Amino acid sequence: MRIDVLTLFPRMFEGPMGESIIGKARAKNLLELNVSNFRDFSDNKHQTVDDYPYGGGAGMLLKVQPVYENLETIKQATPQTKKRIILLDPAGKPFNQAMAEEFSQEEHLIFICGHYEGYDERIRSLVTDEVSLGDYVLTGGELGAMVMIDATVRLLPDVLGNKVSAQTDSHSTGLLEHPQYTRPAIFNDMAVPSVLTSGNHKLIEEWQLKESLRRTYLRRPDMLANLQLTEQMQKMLIEIKQEINN
Amino acid sequence: MRIDVLTLFPRMFEGPMGESIIGKARAKNLLELNVSNFRDFSDNKHQTVDDYPYGGGAGMLLKVQPVYENLETIKQATPQTKKRIILLDPAGKPFNQAMAEEFSQEEHLIFICGHYEGYDERIRSLVTDEVSLGDYVLTGGELGAMVMIDATVRLLPDVLGNKVSAQTDSHSTGLLEHPQYTRPAIFNDMAVPSVLTSGNHKLIEEWQLKESLRRTYLRRPDMLANLQLTEQMQKMLIEIKQEINN
Repeated sequence: MRIDVLTLFPRMFEGPMGESIIGKARAKNLLELNVSNFRDFSDNKHQTVDDYPYGGGAGMLLKVQPVYENLETIKQATPQTKKRIILLDPAGKPFNQAMAEEFSQEEHLIFICGHYEGYDERIRSLVTDEVSLGDYVLTGGELGAMVMIDATVRLLPDVLGNKVSAQTDSHSTGLLEHPQYTRPAIFNDMAVPSVLTSGNHKLIEEWQLKESLRRTYLRRPDMLANLQLTEQMQKMLIEIKQEINN
Repeated sequence: MRIDVLTLFPRMFEGPMGESIIGKARAKNLLELNVSNFRDFSDNKHQTVDDYPYGGGAGMLLKVQPVYENLETIKQATPQTKKRIILLDPAGKPFNQAMAEEFSQEEHLIFICGHYEGYDERIRSLVTDEVSLGDYVLTGGELGAMVMIDATVRLLPDVLGNKVSAQTDSHSTGLLEHPQYTRPAIFNDMAVPSVLTSGNHKLIEEWQLKESLRRTYLRRPDMLANLQLTEQMQKMLIEIKQEINN
């Protein structure tokens, strides 16, 4: 996969995109990541990338020209790739796991990061997707792009090694993870539940399923509403509700 | 404000937390940011931080001991501060703007980032909050912590300068931003709407409000449902629905 990022702050990507899974994917040539500064593409002698909005209003807007030129340069360098061009924007479609899975099937992703300012509306005409990281306000699109890159690249074939378990994939199974414990058996008077050291695999599995259901019911009933529950899970859920009421 | 981050990948924070708004907040001493590696607090001679789960299962879990010792060291160094200790976890409460505002009122935030693995359940007993960035799976909590730090620190008094407008605060006003344009008036045959160059401020304001409503109605009807609409906005919304049907 090739990923390009257009940003005014290329140095922000140096730490996070060089370590851990992303760093390894790049080292194994599973990912080619290019970060470019669209300020370099400004046709203005002062290299300005923003200007006042027509019709007035507070703040500045990112100009369409530098972003357009930067995109054109990438397109000319990669004429064969099928491109998904993603604008990071609070008004975009909220990012989720299904979108990460969709992105991971693509050949070439291009992320455009704004910073401080809004976008000249015509920038939107240059992209295929407008995506928001969540319902909160950030200084720029950079961290959002890194989150989306991380969520996408970990899904590429051969990227995740043995070190990584499917355990953290709460949002893939539809239930939150049940409580888990590792050594020591007792830490500061807090002990591991005895069922987990019983060696009875059937009891352990039942306990894990029930505690997954309990945590999801207590914390994220919205996730539970979207699931088809087995008969066993329905019985457990009745027990959980009774236990909570007692 | 003081922020501590506990992570196995401290270098990931170097780029993003040194640039732009966060970098300036640190330079102005509005933010003291400390990143520590909880591997340094392992009591094991191999400095292991993870171990197999009791009861079996795929993958490894982060041990409670190194995290506990790292937290204790921070607590001893800052006995006076009121602490909010935040565990980054997909099973946590989803992060949003209200939470960023709450965090920005605090004196001392401590973020604990897992990586690859799940947590020993007893780590949860050490924290005040369990927070999730969104319904997607990431390699670790580091990028999530950076997003939360960015969303929080930009709300601190004196952090945002003139350069930053309130324009990007879509999620503060309750409506998505209307389309905006800056020079040139025509770019690749795409022109600025004539109303914006009319000089008629009343017409411009009406156009902006209506286009905000249109974009929110088309993209995020869920946001619209939570708003108290004025009579003018209700009329505009009827017009918008008619325009879409024609």
